[in-house]
Amino acid sequence: MQYQAISIDEKFKKFSEVYQPKVIAQMNDYQFKLARVRGEFVWHSHAETDETFLVIDGELTIEFRDGNVKLGSGQMFIVPRGVEHKPSAETECKIMLIEPVGTVNTGGTGGNLTAPNDAWI
Amino acid sequence: MQYQAISIDEKFKKFSEVYQPKVIAQMNDYQFKLARVRGEFVWHSHAETDETFLVIDGELTIEFRDGNVKLGSGQMFIVPRGVEHKPSAETECKIMLIEPVGTVNTGGTGGNLTAPNDAWI
Repeated sequence: MQYQAISIDEKFKKFSEVYQPKVIAQMNDYQFKLARVRGEFVWHSHAETDETFLVIDGELTIEFRDGNVKLGSGQMFIVPRGVEHKPSAETECKIMLIEPVGTVNTGGTGGNLTAPNDAWI
Repeated sequence: MQYQAISIDEKFKKFSEVYQPKVIAQMNDYQFKLARVRGEFVWHSHAETDETFLVIDGELTIEFRDGNVKLGSGQMFIVPRGVEHKPSAETECKIMLIEPVGTVNTGGTGGNLTAPNDAWI
């Protein structure tokens, strides 16, 4: 039997909206999500979990209350649990998020940028 | 403060041996490991956890008892817990593994390809 690889590029072709993470795989109780980022997101934090950002294409900035990190393609950063952060990108950027099932994109902040959770593509 | 991104390419420059996973980041109780693969690994399984393979560069084959999957750059696959698998690569391939802290590369099989665990670079 020929099992099927999950292609990150092919999955990105399936959606175009920004700040709407799409689940592409699950390992135990963690999910791999793809997202397009453009413009500024909202300040938020995740009280219960660290959150991994891996840039697939483009440049992502994550602001913190005491500084920031800039990530290019093939670079990653893990935001510790409870740390306020605000992702942004001047031009559209493609990222992979790795985080526990049920993690909400806006954390404890909520608001109209809150995306549907567990949206598989 | 300028926080530092983790660059996958830069981390790969720090080691050359094959089948010796190196930890580059930790999220909660999960680790991100880089490994070089060349030749055939051993059949093994992980009774307690799924295991994620993401190919950074090259081509990886994962054999199963009932088939296989072939992964190119930017492709991933999650081997379910308990499923016997044997990674291999005809020419050297760079991969990222994502799995719980303490996961041993040879699973329950052991042997001389068993690598030191929790080896950070």
